[in-house]
Amino acid sequence: MTDSSCISIGLLLFPALTQLDLTGPYEVFARAPNTKVHLIWKNSEPVISDRGMAILPTVTFDTCPKLDVICIPGGPGQIDLMEDEETLSFIRHHSAQSKLVTSVCTGALILGAAGLLQGYKATTHWASLDQLALLGAEPVNARVVRDRNRITGAGVTSGIDFALSVVAAIYGDNVAQNIQLNMEYDPEPPFTSGSPRTAAADLLKQVKDQLAPLIEKRRLATVRAAANKMG
Amino acid sequence: MTDSSCISIGLLLFPALTQLDLTGPYEVFARAPNTKVHLIWKNSEPVISDRGMAILPTVTFDTCPKLDVICIPGGPGQIDLMEDEETLSFIRHHSAQSKLVTSVCTGALILGAAGLLQGYKATTHWASLDQLALLGAEPVNARVVRDRNRITGAGVTSGIDFALSVVAAIYGDNVAQNIQLNMEYDPEPPFTSGSPRTAAADLLKQVKDQLAPLIEKRRLATVRAAANKMG
Repeated sequence: MTDSSCISIGLLLFPALTQLDLTGPYEVFARAPNTKVHLIWKNSEPVISDRGMAILPTVTFDTCPKLDVICIPGGPGQIDLMEDEETLSFIRHHSAQSKLVTSVCTGALILGAAGLLQGYKATTHWASLDQLALLGAEPVNARVVRDRNRITGAGVTSGIDFALSVVAAIYGDNVAQNIQLNMEYDPEPPFTSGSPRTAAADLLKQVKDQLAPLIEKRRLATVRAAANKMG
Repeated sequence: MTDSSCISIGLLLFPALTQLDLTGPYEVFARAPNTKVHLIWKNSEPVISDRGMAILPTVTFDTCPKLDVICIPGGPGQIDLMEDEETLSFIRHHSAQSKLVTSVCTGALILGAAGLLQGYKATTHWASLDQLALLGAEPVNARVVRDRNRITGAGVTSGIDFALSVVAAIYGDNVAQNIQLNMEYDPEPPFTSGSPRTAAADLLKQVKDQLAPLIEKRRLATVRAAANKMG
């Protein structure tokens, strides 16, 4: 902790997060040299992902050290955090001291609710991208978006691309390329349905219909968070 | 458990595994309809990954139900399992009843040590691919390899491609495509260094040199496991 040359990266580990939003970047960050990765939550109990995986925090809000990089993943549990002042205050406090303030997937909406994306270009999961504007951010339809010291990734699996970009920004290209080769990150998706841009129209409609109730619930939370910020 | 229409998928969660080998496929499998995903280890204590993430098993060797799909991830902890008869017996027992016997990364070497890849085409992490031959498998330099009911993925991040292929095989293409769009799996690696095929020669040498001690330790374990199988 007192080794000032060690880079400290903290990922928020919250109930009902989408675990791959966190585990993808963790795998990349934890391979960087002279780096300590923290999994942060309010207490030390196992945190259960939206699909039932239990992961243990390594630090709490009270014991979390100063972070060089703070990263907020997403997932349905994000909705409850949009008005959770304890979490938003924690994020604000650490972001003010961090070199990079980052998110994956709908974690960007939490950053927005904390008032940290006002006037910044940002991205999030494609199905919620428009909601960033309600929080004063400028939505950008891209996989990874950097604007000054904010770096945001798109949906779920973008976390791997995002984290390699963050590592390149901090440690240089060679370190990121080394990690990419070690992780054999040479993706070959079996289908081209990974984006609204490439998915068939009927598949896109199917997924939009399935997601509609969640997206509406999220939108209402975003609207309330935007009102709170103005208040 | 008694719902015979529910598909049961079990992932081995072992000490010093590479967590993304497991968490990538978990994220895909857990999104499939009418599916229960199990994280299996000898006991219920948290299991620590090679880079310090603690994940909780959901079932033990004793309580694990019959599996439709068994999946063995990889990572340095794989080396100790190559001669761990308790684990190899568990894998053999469940594989005999499973519809699909699968692995990600160096999990293929564990399947091989259990005698389950003899005469099968298979793949694993690029840096250990040749070791499959010592266990009687036919190494194939591909991201995902299917031979009869064995499906093996290459290194770490291949687990996502692998899992989408498994889901397509079980549930059909539409389900896999739906999950791919939900996970926004439209990868854009920031570099082209994810494979020995595409990485620069000096980078490849750098990574090979770094990995050499681990690969040699692994090779000795593979040689011993091959001898045990013959014995």
